[in-house]
Amino acid sequence: MKTLERAMAAIQPPDTEIYEQALARLAQQARPAGSLGVLEQTSARLAAIAGTLDVHLDKKMIITCAGDHGVVDEGVSLFPREVTPQMVMNFVNDGASINVLARHAGAAIKVADIGVDFDFDPDLPIFHKKVRKGTSNFTKGSAMTRAEAIASINAGVAIVDELFEQGGVDLLGTGDMGIGNTTPSAAIIAAFSGIAPEQLTGRGTGIDDAMFANKIQVIRKGLEVNQPDPRDAIDVLAKVGGFEIGGLAGLVIGAASHGIPVVCDGFISTAGALIACELVPAAKAYLFASHRSIEQGHCFMHDRLNLTPLLDIGFRLGEGTGAALAFNLLSASTRILAEIKTFEEVAIRNENR
Amino acid sequence: MKTLERAMAAIQPPDTEIYEQALARLAQQARPAGSLGVLEQTSARLAAIAGTLDVHLDKKMIITCAGDHGVVDEGVSLFPREVTPQMVMNFVNDGASINVLARHAGAAIKVADIGVDFDFDPDLPIFHKKVRKGTSNFTKGSAMTRAEAIASINAGVAIVDELFEQGGVDLLGTGDMGIGNTTPSAAIIAAFSGIAPEQLTGRGTGIDDAMFANKIQVIRKGLEVNQPDPRDAIDVLAKVGGFEIGGLAGLVIGAASHGIPVVCDGFISTAGALIACELVPAAKAYLFASHRSIEQGHCFMHDRLNLTPLLDIGFRLGEGTGAALAFNLLSASTRILAEIKTFEEVAIRNENR
Repeated sequence: MKTLERAMAAIQPPDTEIYEQALARLAQQARPAGSLGVLEQTSARLAAIAGTLDVHLDKKMIITCAGDHGVVDEGVSLFPREVTPQMVMNFVNDGASINVLARHAGAAIKVADIGVDFDFDPDLPIFHKKVRKGTSNFTKGSAMTRAEAIASINAGVAIVDELFEQGGVDLLGTGDMGIGNTTPSAAIIAAFSGIAPEQLTGRGTGIDDAMFANKIQVIRKGLEVNQPDPRDAIDVLAKVGGFEIGGLAGLVIGAASHGIPVVCDGFISTAGALIACELVPAAKAYLFASHRSIEQGHCFMHDRLNLTPLLDIGFRLGEGTGAALAFNLLSASTRILAEIKTFEEVAIRNENR
Repeated sequence: MKTLERAMAAIQPPDTEIYEQALARLAQQARPAGSLGVLEQTSARLAAIAGTLDVHLDKKMIITCAGDHGVVDEGVSLFPREVTPQMVMNFVNDGASINVLARHAGAAIKVADIGVDFDFDPDLPIFHKKVRKGTSNFTKGSAMTRAEAIASINAGVAIVDELFEQGGVDLLGTGDMGIGNTTPSAAIIAAFSGIAPEQLTGRGTGIDDAMFANKIQVIRKGLEVNQPDPRDAIDVLAKVGGFEIGGLAGLVIGAASHGIPVVCDGFISTAGALIACELVPAAKAYLFASHRSIEQGHCFMHDRLNLTPLLDIGFRLGEGTGAALAFNLLSASTRILAEIKTFEEVAIRNENR
């Protein structure tokens, strides 16, 4: 647990003085108070993290964590688990949705294998952080051991450490790939919130009514069999989570430990962020929610994290696509804070003319 | 009315064959069907307008129409009408919110004076299209004559004609500036929809309860005194509208006549778009809604236009700020359609490796 303990201990709160300066400047800008909505608080949070009112988010990166799920044996997904490594190859070959949207956002994208059921060529340009080739079926016992859960979080933390050693990033986005992974994600928010699985379960890639009813039963059974302890985030991750979800939690903790803002993507990435913030609430100050997906449990995660997603456009793809799209809104917010003139600045300039 | 009649007659429907091809390609992409939500239909509409599946929105422009309002005498706004020309100068001096957000979007921005109560230097680099120095107070009679209403729409059409002669644009955004202009905008949607002013009226730049109650009374009186005919959009514009709102309607009609996609900004820009589409429903095919503002009547305009706004982030500024921010989402949608590989393309490429 050393990597994780060190990262958790390294998280510092953002600069509250800069945050207050940012709010003051926003209030003095030559426009009606509050008229730029959600982007005002976003810009102030980014300023507090960066320690300056003129934030530049130049080096942007999406990390897409991949893993497989034993619970797929219960018929919770339309796609077979073979699709997980196929999509990893698609990311590497620059042909997937996240490649397109990351390129559009001016961001790099790199995949991390945290638990895919496939032996990738060790020379493949991905983060090789496999904990095990897929979780166990959580309807029959714990998805992973406690040690494996910690190892998956450590994997995410280590990735950010490596990025930092290679010169760092200004903005990190998280994404996921893992056939069946809406099921453990719904189980995670159910475990923390106590809300019934019916209210938290969505249709993933588009299952029909019969598969949907089965998926709810599978989640209920996973919770009953394993009895995850909501006060112990690692226990929740181990019993009903997934390796890539642990990796995603590690990315959030790693980003917070290095003072980097981190944008979570959809339902699965937010489940990872939830594990991170239940484990170490101080990480929340570095976390931004990109979008509200049509997975019906997503809003309960945002409520619990007290985050307002920036986009609500019916995305339900994962991979980091929503995070990549939200990057532009975060960048726009930094320009709002830094560049819109105050009433005083406008007046001064007019006198000089 | 010649300019307007010519523009209305020139509007062609977008290419339905390309639209169908776009939907077919989106359905074949290597991702769950429908998983990129609202941006899928957006990309297909843009393809149909451009006549190609590989749309590039390189030359982007925001036109911000400005005008003053006689109804400000009734105490409907926090700001005095002197602020309208001051903000025009702020736009020209590159110091306002829209300058910042247009620059961030890679878009040019130019102001059009359609009816500001100020004599601008004729050399000022704005579109000089003044119809009159502010409308009349619509609680005491028509805001403008029918001829003036047509002249204001013609002004917007003529601006797009000029842009087209100077090489054209790939994407046009509309914005507004005019102290008091949420009042005529609410009156316009009330006139068309028959919905009570209480349901359509918002707090503009942030008025208190007493001013808010007065604003509703002012709108009700304007409708009672003038009895605008909901089947005659020019009558509605003339009786309870504004010069910049007519200009905004003209921008939409002009863009549609030249086959250019046009993104409307907030409550006032959407009121202009509504005038345009009630006058010539064919223009609607070229129109995109950027965001849902916190003005409570805005959603009724979107419902009537059958448009889903791309953003919902509490903006209530105008100037074109929401349109500029939405440009990136429209560009992203063009990359989604053109660049995400189909299942077949992924397989073909893998065979070639």
